[in-house]
Amino acid sequence: MNITAFEYEDSIIVVDCGMAFPEDDMFGIDSVIPDVTYLEDNIDKVKGFVITHGHEDHIGALPYVLKKVNVPIYATRLTMGIIEYKFKEKNMLDTTERHVVKFGQTVNLGKFRVEFIKTNHSIVDAAALAIYSPVGVIVHTGDFKVDYTPVYGDAIDLQRFAELGKNGVLALMCDSTNAERPGYTPSERTVGVTIDRLFSEHKDTRIIIATFASNVDRVQQIINSSYKYGRKVVVEGRSMVNIISTAQELGCISIPENTLIDIDELKNYPDNQTTIITTGSQGESMAALTRMAEATHRKIKIGPGDTVIFSSHPIPGNEKSVTNVINKLLLKGADVIFQDVHVSGHPCQEELKLIYSLVQPKYAIPVHGEYRHLIAQANIAKMLGYDSKHIFIMHSGDVLEMDQHSAKVTGTVPTGAILVDGLGVGDVGNAVLRDRQHLAEDGIVIVTWVMDGADMVTAGPEITSRGFVYLKEADVLMNEATVVAQDALAKSLRGQQCDENKMRTAVRESLGDFFWKKTKRRPMILPIIMRT
Amino acid sequence: MNITAFEYEDSIIVVDCGMAFPEDDMFGIDSVIPDVTYLEDNIDKVKGFVITHGHEDHIGALPYVLKKVNVPIYATRLTMGIIEYKFKEKNMLDTTERHVVKFGQTVNLGKFRVEFIKTNHSIVDAAALAIYSPVGVIVHTGDFKVDYTPVYGDAIDLQRFAELGKNGVLALMCDSTNAERPGYTPSERTVGVTIDRLFSEHKDTRIIIATFASNVDRVQQIINSSYKYGRKVVVEGRSMVNIISTAQELGCISIPENTLIDIDELKNYPDNQTTIITTGSQGESMAALTRMAEATHRKIKIGPGDTVIFSSHPIPGNEKSVTNVINKLLLKGADVIFQDVHVSGHPCQEELKLIYSLVQPKYAIPVHGEYRHLIAQANIAKMLGYDSKHIFIMHSGDVLEMDQHSAKVTGTVPTGAILVDGLGVGDVGNAVLRDRQHLAEDGIVIVTWVMDGADMVTAGPEITSRGFVYLKEADVLMNEATVVAQDALAKSLRGQQCDENKMRTAVRESLGDFFWKKTKRRPMILPIIMRT
Repeated sequence: MNITAFEYEDSIIVVDCGMAFPEDDMFGIDSVIPDVTYLEDNIDKVKGFVITHGHEDHIGALPYVLKKVNVPIYATRLTMGIIEYKFKEKNMLDTTERHVVKFGQTVNLGKFRVEFIKTNHSIVDAAALAIYSPVGVIVHTGDFKVDYTPVYGDAIDLQRFAELGKNGVLALMCDSTNAERPGYTPSERTVGVTIDRLFSEHKDTRIIIATFASNVDRVQQIINSSYKYGRKVVVEGRSMVNIISTAQELGCISIPENTLIDIDELKNYPDNQTTIITTGSQGESMAALTRMAEATHRKIKIGPGDTVIFSSHPIPGNEKSVTNVINKLLLKGADVIFQDVHVSGHPCQEELKLIYSLVQPKYAIPVHGEYRHLIAQANIAKMLGYDSKHIFIMHSGDVLEMDQHSAKVTGTVPTGAILVDGLGVGDVGNAVLRDRQHLAEDGIVIVTWVMDGADMVTAGPEITSRGFVYLKEADVLMNEATVVAQDALAKSLRGQQCDENKMRTAVRESLGDFFWKKTKRRPMILPIIMRT
Repeated sequence: MNITAFEYEDSIIVVDCGMAFPEDDMFGIDSVIPDVTYLEDNIDKVKGFVITHGHEDHIGALPYVLKKVNVPIYATRLTMGIIEYKFKEKNMLDTTERHVVKFGQTVNLGKFRVEFIKTNHSIVDAAALAIYSPVGVIVHTGDFKVDYTPVYGDAIDLQRFAELGKNGVLALMCDSTNAERPGYTPSERTVGVTIDRLFSEHKDTRIIIATFASNVDRVQQIINSSYKYGRKVVVEGRSMVNIISTAQELGCISIPENTLIDIDELKNYPDNQTTIITTGSQGESMAALTRMAEATHRKIKIGPGDTVIFSSHPIPGNEKSVTNVINKLLLKGADVIFQDVHVSGHPCQEELKLIYSLVQPKYAIPVHGEYRHLIAQANIAKMLGYDSKHIFIMHSGDVLEMDQHSAKVTGTVPTGAILVDGLGVGDVGNAVLRDRQHLAEDGIVIVTWVMDGADMVTAGPEITSRGFVYLKEADVLMNEATVVAQDALAKSLRGQQCDENKMRTAVRESLGDFFWKKTKRRPMILPIIMRT
């Protein structure tokens, strides 16, 4: 969930505006967006959003945040294309101001100037930013890698990084994702070579190849090999179709004529003359490849004679889902290839050393990645001679004040994660999540009884449960529980405790003890009193 | 969940009796055990359980299964020690028959003879089995690796594998876990060298080192380095304490006198003279290291000046939990080391080729591992010249009939996963799990109303929800929902549909539509009618 504000006097600019995917314990949550109270409170200062690239963790929260902080957006061509696709879906095209920026170009935003610098990443048109402020230049790399032989466009503009460094850079905010990995990240082109080899080795089968929807260069290379080996190509999966058609409109991908076909045309070609490029390389439950593996895809059936290639690595946390999909594909008789058909889009340790050596900032501020990755980059900076006082590991909300003489964390601003569930933004909080967790663990037992005006119980208590035990096998248990509830109720009433809260507590506690003793489980117990 | 039955005429023997950990979608489930209906139905034939080693996925279901199929158990020394510890906790020592077997020894079980063969694995005393039947010999490797320089005891008895092969083996059932990995698994001793180096590099700090509770050899090597560098050792985490004390009683680990200390004695020594060996290397939520990282451990506080070493790799599925623990340890200022302080206990591709080449079975039956790993081993067997007809990828419950002339899957027996939740064994099934999933996603809305003998609604409908939305913010929503429920009820009654099921359905459907329209969520809707 990347979002960083830079402030000087009356000017604030914001770099990126990403969403995060929910953690495992955020039951039912669709996505997580940042709390931007600080921006709302200072709306008059905010000059614009400057976006580094078009991945969800850098642009995904824009549709939500723009509703509160509607300022101009600056981004490169494909990045803006993807943002505009989002806005179109939400009818926000007419109500937002957007500026496409070229590499090398600089935009003025109040007291700041921002220059967009060419980098390489697993999405086309990724940019680093040089942020010029009255107290010095900050270089923000965005997500990047050093690719000397990129598939589309130029290599990262290392000369510009060097030039900025030569002139003096106050601080470097640099991508930490791969900071634990030694060496260099290989060029995207090396994957093209592997893909080409796989195509030459599997001339007799249909090829289904899964990768990240936004990796336009990867799709380009798959299309190149398909064309070379005389295959027609289907692109499958909504997010991939969207991004590839945007990339095509903008000329970021070049597809030979008569190569792309509609999924319904597949039947017109022999299997070994078709390639299907699909989403689902992370085993996502609703993605196209997962549906193929589970035989719930309406148009593509997997079987012997299919070669399925994962052009991806599992993102940490997705290993089990990916393995489940691989197992299911193998069970259907497909040949499955999942090793070494991918390279990362982030810099390894030698690339980080390179960027530090070119930029030579006064202060190092590792960004992007888990805390462990920030620490790993800090350790690299130390190896390069930075002392700890010039390295800042920031926490969400920290305010770092900097000039040529000093840098110091001086306070915090309100931040936080806002949960999005269906149409609800922020209406699910910790209390609701705790309830969902409790319900998920042991289910719920509902105890209902009816009382009249004279505080007499006229019906119930009756017990209903969901997610607790099979009712069939739990008849005896539930009959006993009903007696326990009756006793608790009777005792409570004898003690003149017809205070409803006290009655509820008495029933909840007796049933809680009873179920724990009998089952070693703690279902949520919900007493409901109806008054006639 | 490893359990395999071998049957010949009136004799059945069972190899291993493991449990499995619940899948992510098995909400609230503690463990999963095998359905042994087939063994129960043929109890008169079952001669015994033969156990390869003491890991939970090979012994964990014994306490449950023995209650139904109480036959003798055969295992090597440490394996039996761990089983007996389990039985002691469940008061089953007096009601089970147990035989400790030595390597090289053979036991007679009806029409079968079973020989225990020395192997190496990430637990001491692991055995392969040669199962002699009237139609030929089956070699079952159990979990193993080839370690020419093991920490404790002898190297794997490759000569015996060769001798069996020379005499003719009908089938090989071989560990597939690492079958996707090229090369060899390094010796456990290589980890000892790494640990020693880390101890020599961190002489000034306390060392906390996490590993698998059952890896006695790893603990031995950590103790060796601790002793060498003059450190006292605390073993922390219930499962590790149990296994290490069992190993100590049996002489499988040798601990110099005055090296182990109690956790309460830590305060008597300077930090740099102590080592804490702990559970939690997988980020398990209740394990000792996790509690230290979360500052909920009652006796150990992590801070700067602690070196925490993960002597483990994350098991697939645990990556996120491990990263969470690493982040929390780093946040407390500890130095955290988590790369290359571990080796696997399973054979890589070259080791598999070695075993196949020594045993030269007629039939190959890959075992242990996900389906993708079985396929990977099958591919290795094919590379070695086996044709597909001599390789059997088995599914749970498949019956493979074999003799010197042929082998064929001829049918299935009942199998399945029985879910253990608290004290309940098998009382949580798919219906309950589906409910828990539904509750976890979107919570529950309960609608209650009271009806009298004349089918008049005398109270309600009242709406209560849990895990759906903040009630505070949902007042308007719930008021509207109450009106929706009232309308549905009134309409249902006007139509003379005072059939309770029809009323419930009407209310459930109207509220379902209403909430979907308003929130794009589908909470479970539970109508409850009380009759006075």
